[in-house]
Amino acid sequence: MLIKLKQQIRSDALALLVQKLSQHGMHHCISQAGDATILGLEQKPTADLLGEIQAMECVETVMPIATPFKMASKAFKPTRSTIKIKDIEIGGDQIIMMAGPCAIESEEQLLTIARQLKNANVSVLRGSAFKPRTSPYSFQGMGIEGLKIHKRAQLEHGLVIETEVMDVRDVGVVAEHVDIVRIGARNMQNFNLLKEVGQCGKPVILKRGMSATVEEWLMSAEYIMAHGNEQVILCERGIRTFENSTRSTLDLSSVAVAKGMTHLPIIVDPSHAAGRKDIIPALSKASVALGADGLLIEVHHLPAEAKCDGKQALLPHELSQLSTELNTIAQAIGRRL
Amino acid sequence: MLIKLKQQIRSDALALLVQKLSQHGMHHCISQAGDATILGLEQKPTADLLGEIQAMECVETVMPIATPFKMASKAFKPTRSTIKIKDIEIGGDQIIMMAGPCAIESEEQLLTIARQLKNANVSVLRGSAFKPRTSPYSFQGMGIEGLKIHKRAQLEHGLVIETEVMDVRDVGVVAEHVDIVRIGARNMQNFNLLKEVGQCGKPVILKRGMSATVEEWLMSAEYIMAHGNEQVILCERGIRTFENSTRSTLDLSSVAVAKGMTHLPIIVDPSHAAGRKDIIPALSKASVALGADGLLIEVHHLPAEAKCDGKQALLPHELSQLSTELNTIAQAIGRRL
Amino acid sequence: MLIKLKQQIRSDALALLVQKLSQHGMHHCISQAGDATILGLEQKPTADLLGEIQAMECVETVMPIATPFKMASKAFKPTRSTIKIKDIEIGGDQIIMMAGPCAIESEEQLLTIARQLKNANVSVLRGSAFKPRTSPYSFQGMGIEGLKIHKRAQLEHGLVIETEVMDVRDVGVVAEHVDIVRIGARNMQNFNLLKEVGQCGKPVILKRGMSATVEEWLMSAEYIMAHGNEQVILCERGIRTFENSTRSTLDLSSVAVAKGMTHLPIIVDPSHAAGRKDIIPALSKASVALGADGLLIEVHHLPAEAKCDGKQALLPHELSQLSTELNTIAQAIGRRL
Amino acid sequence: MLIKLKQQIRSDALALLVQKLSQHGMHHCISQAGDATILGLEQKPTADLLGEIQAMECVETVMPIATPFKMASKAFKPTRSTIKIKDIEIGGDQIIMMAGPCAIESEEQLLTIARQLKNANVSVLRGSAFKPRTSPYSFQGMGIEGLKIHKRAQLEHGLVIETEVMDVRDVGVVAEHVDIVRIGARNMQNFNLLKEVGQCGKPVILKRGMSATVEEWLMSAEYIMAHGNEQVILCERGIRTFENSTRSTLDLSSVAVAKGMTHLPIIVDPSHAAGRKDIIPALSKASVALGADGLLIEVHHLPAEAKCDGKQALLPHELSQLSTELNTIAQAIGRRL
Repeated sequence: MLIKLKQQIRSDALALLVQKLSQHGMHHCISQAGDATILGLEQKPTADLLGEIQAMECVETVMPIATPFKMASKAFKPTRSTIKIKDIEIGGDQIIMMAGPCAIESEEQLLTIARQLKNANVSVLRGSAFKPRTSPYSFQGMGIEGLKIHKRAQLEHGLVIETEVMDVRDVGVVAEHVDIVRIGARNMQNFNLLKEVGQCGKPVILKRGMSATVEEWLMSAEYIMAHGNEQVILCERGIRTFENSTRSTLDLSSVAVAKGMTHLPIIVDPSHAAGRKDIIPALSKASVALGADGLLIEVHHLPAEAKCDGKQALLPHELSQLSTELNTIAQAIGRRL
Repeated sequence: MLIKLKQQIRSDALALLVQKLSQHGMHHCISQAGDATILGLEQKPTADLLGEIQAMECVETVMPIATPFKMASKAFKPTRSTIKIKDIEIGGDQIIMMAGPCAIESEEQLLTIARQLKNANVSVLRGSAFKPRTSPYSFQGMGIEGLKIHKRAQLEHGLVIETEVMDVRDVGVVAEHVDIVRIGARNMQNFNLLKEVGQCGKPVILKRGMSATVEEWLMSAEYIMAHGNEQVILCERGIRTFENSTRSTLDLSSVAVAKGMTHLPIIVDPSHAAGRKDIIPALSKASVALGADGLLIEVHHLPAEAKCDGKQALLPHELSQLSTELNTIAQAIGRRL
Repeated sequence: MLIKLKQQIRSDALALLVQKLSQHGMHHCISQAGDATILGLEQKPTADLLGEIQAMECVETVMPIATPFKMASKAFKPTRSTIKIKDIEIGGDQIIMMAGPCAIESEEQLLTIARQLKNANVSVLRGSAFKPRTSPYSFQGMGIEGLKIHKRAQLEHGLVIETEVMDVRDVGVVAEHVDIVRIGARNMQNFNLLKEVGQCGKPVILKRGMSATVEEWLMSAEYIMAHGNEQVILCERGIRTFENSTRSTLDLSSVAVAKGMTHLPIIVDPSHAAGRKDIIPALSKASVALGADGLLIEVHHLPAEAKCDGKQALLPHELSQLSTELNTIAQAIGRRL
Repeated sequence: MLIKLKQQIRSDALALLVQKLSQHGMHHCISQAGDATILGLEQKPTADLLGEIQAMECVETVMPIATPFKMASKAFKPTRSTIKIKDIEIGGDQIIMMAGPCAIESEEQLLTIARQLKNANVSVLRGSAFKPRTSPYSFQGMGIEGLKIHKRAQLEHGLVIETEVMDVRDVGVVAEHVDIVRIGARNMQNFNLLKEVGQCGKPVILKRGMSATVEEWLMSAEYIMAHGNEQVILCERGIRTFENSTRSTLDLSSVAVAKGMTHLPIIVDPSHAAGRKDIIPALSKASVALGADGLLIEVHHLPAEAKCDGKQALLPHELSQLSTELNTIAQAIGRRL
């Protein structure tokens, strides 16, 4: 467990901290890491003591070192990571808009949407060729044919493209066709799939599982990193709770919490969390203000005819309008869309 | 169930909606309410059909009328309510900052904090004289003595004051001393208490219960309104989930959802949701961007010595800094602090 | 934190335990409490270490002493408590059947049901005169008139009677009329109500709150005990989760867990947990086999006409049939109905 | 939606049902399926109406037909399925004990445990050669070497063996070595894995996902069946909730609910749900009394040295003792161990 001190502290405040640690029998050592001064504790404090330490004047933040994730942790790499893909940079000043249909349904569908998104501040075109579906009788995606259509949209409109991979046997062909590989919520702990994308050479969006804690989410990122791929983008998409007015409960606190634990970029998918389109603008604004590095939003030009999740898709012109509003908020916090 | 149409619609889009309703055997009638055109359905559509209806071009919003809350509903009163208390207005353009200690501990404590908050854009001074505590052996609050100290802070610093009431027998004395009466999360379904504050003549902050759905929350507001008090301010403060990196999971979606169901103002308490101070600024920014009408934040000048919840309290100067940042976001969405 | 050793241990097994504690820097002292040998630890072990300790050969059980509940804890009173009311004893060998309608609706209704239950192994007649209802427009109970009807059923049929109290102002009149006072799930943390029933002189059934942890539930029992009333009966009735095939999720593990932490009797209410009658027999059998000290089941002679919760009520003859089946299971575990 | 009538009904009770349906505008038709009389409804009733229907005198059970699972449903196959493997039959009168270590660690470990379980009423030896682990740095299992050891235990002790498969590429080799293939909770919605085990020719234990509803669980069974494998055994192992005294919350209601929806056998894994050994006997007894068709319990002869989950493992002699107690309960409900 590490206590990071503020840059400027009063020595009596430090004495107070050290005294409290001694009172609780906590041994400590002081060290310097870059420009940060760190107090390392051997023992794990109780939750109450932890709270007291966090509230002390000289303390900037408290980091558990005993957590099993290493490469993903801020203790390992204190500066924020950015991921460059063509002319975009995820995790930098720009907030990256990723949008597109839930599923790739046809060439006409994807190219129509791509064309309209191009003018709506969107840099990344989402779309799934392989679809995880609760029912074996539902549309399962276009497969490799879908990947080829996606590639065509990329070439024609100069968009970065991202898609989901569900099967270890498909990682190769997916990584060959797209710029970003996505791991869906249901596969967050499909560990063999994590190992494979750890070797695929392409950036990975890792969605949080519906019942995964923040720590488990970061551990899954660690799997990918430990197998050779440091280009991991975390994506919050809602957790399962008793509340049923939304499909899942978007856990924006987790984004703030994870920002304190990891150097990796974090984006938010309000569409799958909400499962209804009316509150997507509000959730998107909240995500930007909170510090998310990007948004992943479902858009369809004909939602009533979409093969899946049409009810949560925005129309392209609605996304365009939303982008303008988000940009104003981004600027208010010193960033841009 | 009511379908509210957009102001400007294409007649073929309307025909499409009517056709879909007929296909599903849903009878409907069209009526005018103010400047809104409403399609009333007798039957409740399935969740799937509901989603399809919401996604249709001519539909602005869909409102369940079968829900048992009436006075709190937008169907009953389509325009947003505002609550005027002295020189502030909750639910208007201004986002109201409410802050103060968890518990009132002494005159010196409260007056010190009040003085410092006065300069931090804070209009409402929170503080509890009666404290709901999990343990019978914990500090239970100063009681009526605390109310008197609160009153003194109000008079000296011109702040609006709010406090919690836990007991039906205390409603009278509490309403006499403070400007806003607060119902805590644990009492959201203490129905007799709701009835009493329904007759107390003062505005009421109604916190959402830790395991209450949005609909149950609005039903509790309905209790207060049905007993004569329309001045209800809803307050989201987090729900219980499996995630344990925060004390509760702040459910910002519920604020957006509730805004679509009720005309009442809604504020957010990030302090009790998080249970840790480091993410309170991020959650506050998200709340403002999302459309919350106010924030309820715990502040203490000496958090390490606070009798309760010190670990989630901001210092007065931290709140002051946060207010400045929130104001920038507020302006970006056309409001102000 | 206390480690209770088994009665018969091998000294090398003890040495292994002491060695592990030393390795983790945990100081300990050994003491005798009655016929139990206890190792007390000053520090709280990590969850992992705790698990390892629990799995060691010489360890019978591990008890947190740092928990703030005292009078309710097994550390305080290692033998199981029983509560005698007239000719029944709750917490003894007999498993107590409590049954009756959700709400008292009329004299005819309650007396009819009472008569039929008398022959179905039922000792306690439930029924609510004060009803907590989500909607202010729903039937709120018969009030004091209902208490009088309840009393009549008690006198006529020799049943023990129990009812809910919701309001601090009603504790006196309720305790005067009935044999057992019940605190509902929504009031588990209505601390002032707990204090009042702590002084009412009658046994109290304390339902677990819908989002309360086992520890919080026991803390609420502690409130009642700390105010003078040791006759507390805990009642598990389901917690709120994402699963929606039942109204709440009956948490039978919590009964087993709580049995390890407290000496108080524990009963189960499968009716409110399930919210549907078809699985109540299965849940009742599971509760008896698990070690519950009683069951609280809703019964109505005309469920289709019940003023509330008719859909979860068994018919009297169904309960009678169930009692026979439960008795067979009770005997298999050395108890009886 | 289907309403199944009881075998013996009064005609006036039927008239009452039909009248209620008409009042709510529900069209129906009556048909005979085997010896069951079924009322089919075209429309889905509201939750309230559903409850009222279920409570009516002539109604045995109500089955949604609109659910997308077909082959797994009771409407499709009203009689309970049994799965025969060598000399055992899962889903019949006998309650099947499955036990063994979490992970296969060595030949000596597995054979020692197998020998001791053979005398404890255990028919199926569990053990994992491939381990899903939250951390990439934890023991990942012995792989194919583990499968070979498992096979040896099967041959030497005449036990049926079962193991987990995590990777579509391993389904062939796993199905070749063991008698029953297990899908873990994290893979319940790994749809491509479900498709593969749907073609593997061996019975499949399908664990419920930590955040899966009963309906989603049955849909995953449907995936396996729709791909050709009808030998599916459902396994409840706890869901994620806020309660943290157990690792997951064992949802025994779901077993009772699922029994009403599907003809497939259902077993319970109390070990992973609890994450602590002290309450496993109580949960096992509850499962048997409730109607579970089997138990899956972790056992280790040296739990303190186990490579994973040692803290929840019973000792072989503890399981032996538990088996005796479970048998008494089994007989009380007309079954046997």
